[in-house]
Amino acid sequence: MPHDAALAELRQLLGDRLSWSKPDLLQHGQNESWFPETPPDAVAYPATTEEVARIVGICARHGCPVVAWGAGTSLEGHALAIQGGVAVDFSRMDKVLQVRPGDMQVVVQPGITREALNAELRATGLMFPVDPGANATIGGMAGTRASGTTTVRYGTMRDNVVALEVVLADGRVIRTGSGARKSAAGYDLTGLFVGSEGTLGLITELTLRLHGQPEAISAAVCAFPEFNSAVEAVIATIQSGIPMARIEFVDEAVARIFNAQSGTAFPELPHLMVEFHGSATGAAEDARRFGDIADSFGALGFDWATTTEDRNRLWRMRHGAYRACIASRPGCMGMVTDICVPISRLAEAVAETRADIAELDLVGPILGHVGDGNFHAILLLGRDDADELARAKDLTRRLAERALRLGGTITGEHGVGLGKKGLMLLEHGEAWEVMARIKRALDPEGILNPGKVVEVSQ
Amino acid sequence: MPHDAALAELRQLLGDRLSWSKPDLLQHGQNESWFPETPPDAVAYPATTEEVARIVGICARHGCPVVAWGAGTSLEGHALAIQGGVAVDFSRMDKVLQVRPGDMQVVVQPGITREALNAELRATGLMFPVDPGANATIGGMAGTRASGTTTVRYGTMRDNVVALEVVLADGRVIRTGSGARKSAAGYDLTGLFVGSEGTLGLITELTLRLHGQPEAISAAVCAFPEFNSAVEAVIATIQSGIPMARIEFVDEAVARIFNAQSGTAFPELPHLMVEFHGSATGAAEDARRFGDIADSFGALGFDWATTTEDRNRLWRMRHGAYRACIASRPGCMGMVTDICVPISRLAEAVAETRADIAELDLVGPILGHVGDGNFHAILLLGRDDADELARAKDLTRRLAERALRLGGTITGEHGVGLGKKGLMLLEHGEAWEVMARIKRALDPEGILNPGKVVEVSQ
Repeated sequence: MPHDAALAELRQLLGDRLSWSKPDLLQHGQNESWFPETPPDAVAYPATTEEVARIVGICARHGCPVVAWGAGTSLEGHALAIQGGVAVDFSRMDKVLQVRPGDMQVVVQPGITREALNAELRATGLMFPVDPGANATIGGMAGTRASGTTTVRYGTMRDNVVALEVVLADGRVIRTGSGARKSAAGYDLTGLFVGSEGTLGLITELTLRLHGQPEAISAAVCAFPEFNSAVEAVIATIQSGIPMARIEFVDEAVARIFNAQSGTAFPELPHLMVEFHGSATGAAEDARRFGDIADSFGALGFDWATTTEDRNRLWRMRHGAYRACIASRPGCMGMVTDICVPISRLAEAVAETRADIAELDLVGPILGHVGDGNFHAILLLGRDDADELARAKDLTRRLAERALRLGGTITGEHGVGLGKKGLMLLEHGEAWEVMARIKRALDPEGILNPGKVVEVSQ
Repeated sequence: MPHDAALAELRQLLGDRLSWSKPDLLQHGQNESWFPETPPDAVAYPATTEEVARIVGICARHGCPVVAWGAGTSLEGHALAIQGGVAVDFSRMDKVLQVRPGDMQVVVQPGITREALNAELRATGLMFPVDPGANATIGGMAGTRASGTTTVRYGTMRDNVVALEVVLADGRVIRTGSGARKSAAGYDLTGLFVGSEGTLGLITELTLRLHGQPEAISAAVCAFPEFNSAVEAVIATIQSGIPMARIEFVDEAVARIFNAQSGTAFPELPHLMVEFHGSATGAAEDARRFGDIADSFGALGFDWATTTEDRNRLWRMRHGAYRACIASRPGCMGMVTDICVPISRLAEAVAETRADIAELDLVGPILGHVGDGNFHAILLLGRDDADELARAKDLTRRLAERALRLGGTITGEHGVGLGKKGLMLLEHGEAWEVMARIKRALDPEGILNPGKVVEVSQ
């Protein structure tokens, strides 16, 4: 077995919390996307920061790769051990360590999921709003700079991680940031580790910014005769200063698929779904003002709701979209694109992408976080269809070039992982080499999630 | 002259835009605080990014230090050329390059001041809200991660810089970030350069996030019988979700000094000044709700205003505080402390600091950004009074230790510069060495603002 010496020492440290059972290896070699299975050599289940530091220290001495593992919900193969080594599974480090209601902060271990965290927070009147869809771990969300449906109002993980404890590549433990709401004390290391995908250090503790649970929530859904007018309505809403908590888009293909799968009767047109958080009168007033704007852009079938049950009914097409799309082509695998552009260029980006999808003879309904300029085509690919996969990769390349031409980014929220690394030079040019310098400075032996984010060949 | 060869080449490049006239050197060796004057060897006035790149390239070949210079309003001696070399004055790179109203962004050169930027934006209905008090340049504000009175609502420079163009230590030019509102494409280099105080690169262009000019502004001032109840009122306001655009504190010493200097009759008690931005009804409603909360914590003499003139009247004690304090002790020099703590510990931090100031026999009225947990003691020091300066430094040390004990930071917004470098190890421990590694990776010869932020001795 490769890395025998490292694994023997790790076994001594962790006992049966170091596993190389076949099911364990398989589980930690899987992914939710189209990447081949890539099991690690072993899976470690640390219980404390001290243990993580000792694991990394042992692996550093033996040159054994270390890959952090959260909930395995990444769509870009971030946590696949492509050079072997040890998957560090944080599922036993899943505690809320401290709630600080006066400071609207919480200190957690990385293995807690966002749903578990919000369940624990419920009685405090506070919430952690970042919602990438999947029930990911907070550590994984920080590592990939996750965002999602509420980002238009509450920001991404970059905006909501206040401080970190991190185990470095040599096993040292550092703290970044503090409990203060701001600081000018040197380089922003917290921001550097957030989004570094486990390549610069392993996050072992996070201080998060919390927000008040809204007193009231209003939701609305409406259809538009075509996509452009939906985007124009969103831009006008943003400029009017109406604070949207969520503003999501699905295209007519999603509506058609969802109707077919769920027996619903949504108009088979582009839709916007919005949500407003505030006081009872404030949220209702925001929804009404949005309604006026949407009307002026030709919105149809405007429907709105305030009770939880009614809101769930309105939102079910958005929340069920990914599953409905995957189910609509039995046996397919999903490849989800993720570009993000300035919102003024969004209509153009989506129109050109739809033309590409048609030209390449792919199936790819589109949905997205329209308030952020971020959209996804859910490509439904036949398994073992090499030609279709090649066309999908062609689309991905065209999307990346389009995003950059329009002033945007190759990935709004899914991260680099395996899927986007080949496009990093295109986006960053010489700045990609600066990232590699930082990687070499912090992980000179290249043991932390090797092969991801940067190219470190000297 | 030191760096003769570098200066000769720079003279060839820039002609009379390289200056070593005495007034120029003196002006670029001054600071607004207590640090000794430290003139550079020459001052360069580049007009383009290309020229900045060539300046840095020439300096790199000769090992000549390069220090970025904005408006010279730093309080911690950031821009002092303590190892000589060239001050790069960005005053000729002060243009708005592009306003993107649909994306609520603006692209600017670093030498534009925040007041000039907002004057240019006025007709667009948009504004750049970060307000550190001084009319600093945008480049300087990014370099020091500036914040100020509006941060409680709009964030710091970290939150409002979207993308950068940066000249690296070897003269290469990179771009970080994009026009998209978010990205997960690798390490957050934008966030790394913001707050790096010119030690990792020279910022030559910035894309900023803009906000809508509020339809209406409500302001209020009230006094409290003691500081604790003022802080409790602020915490209760934040938790209630009332969106404050500004919430500032001055202590009774400031009120006393301001009355004496300006002939006003503010009660000589701790005061809060608040401002609310929104629709006419929204801002008024927010002010009313704040009033109810303040009342329940014993607020006195509550006064509020909506017109510009009335608001200026209410705010004049806060805006005039620094000048009034300095003027109250003729010939003194100011040393301004800057710790930031979790807001739940703010009352404790201020109370202990006041006790220290009394014990050390110093004069130091206190004001601050109470919504962020950030406060300043304005120490009024006799010039050439070495003993008083030593006591002030003792206070600074005690403040730093207090900030860290309470979970905060040694500097909320003024940055490291010369004044806080000696405290960086105390705050960051091993993480300070990580910052040094990043510095060495990006500036291996150490020519960019040498001697600041990190300790790079190998």
